[in-house]
Amino acid sequence: MSTLLLSCADLRQIVRRAGVDEIMDRLIERLADALMSYDPERTEIPMRAGFHYEKPFAGLIEWMPLLEKQRSMLMKVVGYHPESPGNQRLPTILSNLGKYDPSNGRLVALVDGTFLTAMRTGAASAVASRILAHPDSSRVGLIGCGAQSVTQLHALTRVFGVREVQIHDIDPAAEASFPARVRSFLDPAVAIHAMAPAEMVSDVDILCVATSVAIGAGPVFEFGQTRPWLHVNAVGSDFPGKIEVPKSLLLAAYVCPDALDQARREGECQQLLLDQIGHDLVAITQRSADFVGKRTGLTVFDSTGWALEDQVAMDLLLEYARKFGIGSQVQIEQISNDPRDPYEFLCPDDAQRADKQMRPAGDAA
Amino acid sequence: MSTLLLSCADLRQIVRRAGVDEIMDRLIERLADALMSYDPERTEIPMRAGFHYEKPFAGLIEWMPLLEKQRSMLMKVVGYHPESPGNQRLPTILSNLGKYDPSNGRLVALVDGTFLTAMRTGAASAVASRILAHPDSSRVGLIGCGAQSVTQLHALTRVFGVREVQIHDIDPAAEASFPARVRSFLDPAVAIHAMAPAEMVSDVDILCVATSVAIGAGPVFEFGQTRPWLHVNAVGSDFPGKIEVPKSLLLAAYVCPDALDQARREGECQQLLLDQIGHDLVAITQRSADFVGKRTGLTVFDSTGWALEDQVAMDLLLEYARKFGIGSQVQIEQISNDPRDPYEFLCPDDAQRADKQMRPAGDAA
Repeated sequence: MSTLLLSCADLRQIVRRAGVDEIMDRLIERLADALMSYDPERTEIPMRAGFHYEKPFAGLIEWMPLLEKQRSMLMKVVGYHPESPGNQRLPTILSNLGKYDPSNGRLVALVDGTFLTAMRTGAASAVASRILAHPDSSRVGLIGCGAQSVTQLHALTRVFGVREVQIHDIDPAAEASFPARVRSFLDPAVAIHAMAPAEMVSDVDILCVATSVAIGAGPVFEFGQTRPWLHVNAVGSDFPGKIEVPKSLLLAAYVCPDALDQARREGECQQLLLDQIGHDLVAITQRSADFVGKRTGLTVFDSTGWALEDQVAMDLLLEYARKFGIGSQVQIEQISNDPRDPYEFLCPDDAQRADKQMRPAGDAA
Repeated sequence: MSTLLLSCADLRQIVRRAGVDEIMDRLIERLADALMSYDPERTEIPMRAGFHYEKPFAGLIEWMPLLEKQRSMLMKVVGYHPESPGNQRLPTILSNLGKYDPSNGRLVALVDGTFLTAMRTGAASAVASRILAHPDSSRVGLIGCGAQSVTQLHALTRVFGVREVQIHDIDPAAEASFPARVRSFLDPAVAIHAMAPAEMVSDVDILCVATSVAIGAGPVFEFGQTRPWLHVNAVGSDFPGKIEVPKSLLLAAYVCPDALDQARREGECQQLLLDQIGHDLVAITQRSADFVGKRTGLTVFDSTGWALEDQVAMDLLLEYARKFGIGSQVQIEQISNDPRDPYEFLCPDDAQRADKQMRPAGDAA
């Protein structure tokens, strides 16, 4: 009885072997499939909860559980600490995901969630944009050039013919380093320009907003002139009081939340009444033909982050781990000849079972 | 940035080196201290939540978070699957505990929770019994002879002069194997007898009830003649509808819950009105002199299991791990030169950082 551990180094190996484009492509397709077949009777996703605090630094740690009945239980623990890149050289978002077997409660796998979170958030925007954005979208704007902006752009390049990228960040260093951070996947022919938000809004087909704006300090841009169509992926609003998109734009647009209850509490939908909010990501995926008409107007995907996305990403990464034989089998949980005896190991004849704790993945029982 | 992993094998080593008596003694004292200084303004403990299901086997997986402000955040994930010992040779209770740093969200330590849960549940009963049971208690009764009964008895032997142990389990195999499972700590002079519950209730000073009785099937014994005093540690009732202790006994006794709201939802206190419930474990610890008079009557500790107990046990085991240099440093979370770049590791010059993932504990950065 052991747990498969996929560390950041293991994920690195998986990405190098499979290629980041292939992984993103599969993730987008798997997520679309999972949304298409999503059944709330089969998969329970309670609203996430968490601890929020101001000291020692403003931040939160949340838990996001999911149960796919008779198949698997997922627990994602995710920390959001926007001062971390500046004061500790750590990512704003740190997380891990545990996968449990609901037939006995054992921890089947534990996976680093930082890379996974960035990938699945990008994939979710690609799925929503494929339904709600103009199909000929070629100009992408990014407000906020942190870790999430990289995977937002990457995912969009997999489903649109992106030719121009406009970027903005209040931190000049984040703008300056952005081109280097996307060179691993971006066609060198694609132009990247820094551009003020007001101009960007009037220029782009798809706008992704992913900032660490403080509670009460948003929105991060103004709603002015746009092209006839504009699709916004509103990624950073995921906390009560934190918003990025002007209410006037939301009111003028068709707004699709990833998860309605959560978006009303934490997302851009905080700014809206219930009847001002459109269908959720599951609904527009399952009935996408009904929403084709939205592509030539204003649309917003209110992405607060949903555990179904995490489940899809985790299962995909576990598949690659098995295929490549990557990861460690770690004996975390208690094994026992007699499950009724918590002190069994105190007996001398048990010594031979206090054996090696780490085995290579291929050697799993 | 690495995570200290304490597996079952590591805990085994710690217990062998420190001795199970010393660990239990310290755990009891630390828990009493933590209850004495507990301040809900400093330590937030939300009620646990979870998934409950009947298939493939009746069970539940719950999460128990705790935040000690500016110090640490704990997430315990615990599975309860009473058919596991019979059909999978796994413990009924499997769990793990993650300790997070609330200044940045990183996972500081991950510890197997099965042994820890059994130890801390025993320690909680010892703390409650020391306040509420007759100080000369020497006869202990155990209804239910599974894993929890072992640590219940062990903890009681550390604070009372136990001379006789009466046991009962509906499974004869559990009764038969009990003496062997307590030989590592129990004075061989202490007599162990199988005894029917009705007789046991009239015989013992302290009764511990820890069964896997099904929802709706309790109580597991009848309230009949007792000595002038009897203290009951009601351990197994931890689920809506699951009870072990007869309501008539609860109504005749002073009932102390570990955590009031949780006990009213999941514990024996489900059977009581609010004004039939006494003070909680924090209150009787902080004002123990006020409760001395209860020791010569009927008392019940309604133990549903509280995250504060887990925090105390985890911190103690982490202290031993540091002292003995036991445990593995595991690089689970993403490290990066640039926290804004989730794809940094795709660049060739990063190759030297995709290095060893496991280091011995003493080699931690």
